[in-house]
Amino acid sequence: MKRYLMTPGPTPVPEDIALLMAKPIIHHRTDEFKKVFDETKQLIKRLFKTENEIVMFASSGTGSMEAAVSNVLNEGEKAISINAGKFGERWSKLIKAFGGVNLELTYEYGDYAKAEDIKALIDKNPDVKAVYIQASETSTGTFHPIDEIGLMLKEKYPEIIFVVDGITAYGAIDVETDKWNIDIGITGSQKALMLPPGLSILSVSEKAIKKIEKSTNRFYYFDILGELKARWGNYTPAVSLVFGLNAAVKKILDEGLENVFKRHRLLAEATREAVKSLGLRLLSKRPADSLTAVYSPDGIDSSEIIKLMKSYGVEISNGQGHLKGKIFRIAHLGYFDKPDMLLAISVLEIALKKLNVNANFGEGIKKAMEILSE
Amino acid sequence: MKRYLMTPGPTPVPEDIALLMAKPIIHHRTDEFKKVFDETKQLIKRLFKTENEIVMFASSGTGSMEAAVSNVLNEGEKAISINAGKFGERWSKLIKAFGGVNLELTYEYGDYAKAEDIKALIDKNPDVKAVYIQASETSTGTFHPIDEIGLMLKEKYPEIIFVVDGITAYGAIDVETDKWNIDIGITGSQKALMLPPGLSILSVSEKAIKKIEKSTNRFYYFDILGELKARWGNYTPAVSLVFGLNAAVKKILDEGLENVFKRHRLLAEATREAVKSLGLRLLSKRPADSLTAVYSPDGIDSSEIIKLMKSYGVEISNGQGHLKGKIFRIAHLGYFDKPDMLLAISVLEIALKKLNVNANFGEGIKKAMEILSE
Repeated sequence: MKRYLMTPGPTPVPEDIALLMAKPIIHHRTDEFKKVFDETKQLIKRLFKTENEIVMFASSGTGSMEAAVSNVLNEGEKAISINAGKFGERWSKLIKAFGGVNLELTYEYGDYAKAEDIKALIDKNPDVKAVYIQASETSTGTFHPIDEIGLMLKEKYPEIIFVVDGITAYGAIDVETDKWNIDIGITGSQKALMLPPGLSILSVSEKAIKKIEKSTNRFYYFDILGELKARWGNYTPAVSLVFGLNAAVKKILDEGLENVFKRHRLLAEATREAVKSLGLRLLSKRPADSLTAVYSPDGIDSSEIIKLMKSYGVEISNGQGHLKGKIFRIAHLGYFDKPDMLLAISVLEIALKKLNVNANFGEGIKKAMEILSE
Repeated sequence: MKRYLMTPGPTPVPEDIALLMAKPIIHHRTDEFKKVFDETKQLIKRLFKTENEIVMFASSGTGSMEAAVSNVLNEGEKAISINAGKFGERWSKLIKAFGGVNLELTYEYGDYAKAEDIKALIDKNPDVKAVYIQASETSTGTFHPIDEIGLMLKEKYPEIIFVVDGITAYGAIDVETDKWNIDIGITGSQKALMLPPGLSILSVSEKAIKKIEKSTNRFYYFDILGELKARWGNYTPAVSLVFGLNAAVKKILDEGLENVFKRHRLLAEATREAVKSLGLRLLSKRPADSLTAVYSPDGIDSSEIIKLMKSYGVEISNGQGHLKGKIFRIAHLGYFDKPDMLLAISVLEIALKKLNVNANFGEGIKKAMEILSE
């Protein structure tokens, strides 16, 4: 059966990039590889909208998250983590795992962080050293107001290190790393960058580097300064993924960054408006353009919808944690275009109909067609 | 120009496996992926000759080395590291990085570890908790007597955890994980397993698990027990590499493990005897069958030989550290067969001739042909 992967990572890999990565492997200590590695870092800077240094690890995105904690936060130092979903929870776990004092700011799943809450917490804890947040919380499809938070931190607490997990944001949603005061921005290969998993990327500011230089923690593989010093990878880089990344970022820049963001916005809007027209509710109060989380209709386990859609080859995701069975998530980040959303909404309608859900059948796809034909 | 990659990792990827990894990506939380993941671990057990548990990390091989230190050795605990080359040195760095007390047993580059030296050091330090070694030291092409060391430890010090970096051994040279008492055996994707870099693999014994359960260290991403518990990857696994690994190990087992080892032995013997027939000297006192390290002729910088061979498309490696310029290394692990070694030796002879080296020209390739036609 033909398959249509619409999960929020891994996402589909463009055919030309998949084949490019199938090219014969080359050695990583060659001028040829070093040139590609350097160029790729420059391309990433454009994608991240940053002048900061770029580091890549052969790891899942969690590897860069770990580096942003273990390298930055010393034992006993306070950090604020925003927990509004499963990936926010990961910040908490990491901070605790490395001996930091975790000030957790919790929000309902679907809600978003408020700059004033963070400000209030810092005012009570003026010795906070870092703030950890997601740009897009993948478990709920929520985009936190990174711009407001970043600018508030810049203005009021310029010493605090601002760390943003942009794993389902960079390359899909405009994240202005430098303008928004992001000291460490993070992404992974398998999301908007349209690659297989196995490569994580981070940008690191001068301010963060100065903090890392004073680190008293133990780390080895995820060593940000070590990677900066080694320049082309302290250990064997994921050679084929680096080649893929080079091609993928070029593809994004060729389309034009703003066009890519606009495309994601349009696909997201079509998805959101379509499900609302069907009578369904969105989970998120501040939806991200990278994926859409939707409440399952009353009395229907979302697993049923997902299973039926899969019988047509369309693979979407369930909720995570306590939202399992309660929501479904349709991704539209990376290698997606208008027709993909049309098929997703149509198949969703078919699934709902088969489940005898009370919905405005026909209205979802009609709305999607309307928006996507604009 | 057609290229012939003969460096000790990354090594060439078989064309069918490269294309298999270019297949559309699937989600990692699917039954389909879990089945492949489980099966792959079973295949690895056969390759490793072990009944122990298998863990895979999305990382370079160093990631598994780190896990074998950070998870196993607590602060202030003593460990012996065998340093007979650049990768042995990495054990020292890791032990120190994680607060262990590093008892370094140093050998000249090219020399190999002796079981009696390790025994003597343990007798002086009965509180040693672990021994860290390479099977094949890639920087010198030396195979340490892992069998003797492992059996000595088993007999005399059954409590000590024996950790073997088999990154350029597993799948090329017979390493009997269980019979040789290896508690943690490690490899990476980009060596004998014929895959791109980005996946590291380890086997872990019950005894090692019991030690890890008492760990007081800080780690998160490289969490052996966490991976065992999660079973299919705590974080996003390197999906395409896992599919590649499945196919690669099947390819190895289809050829027959013993046949694969025999092939590597033959290619290694042909290379060694050929360079000796040319009048060159081997670096290693106990050469590994995965790569051959050769002294450059007197007065000749090995970089010159490497550059000339590269002008024919044949890429071999230089020495590392103080051996740079002094030796060259020809790899023959993974996707290599007899004709590859014939071309390598022929091109080596051409390079030496162009450098006006005093060598027994014609004798190298003659010897290689003789051995490889047996």
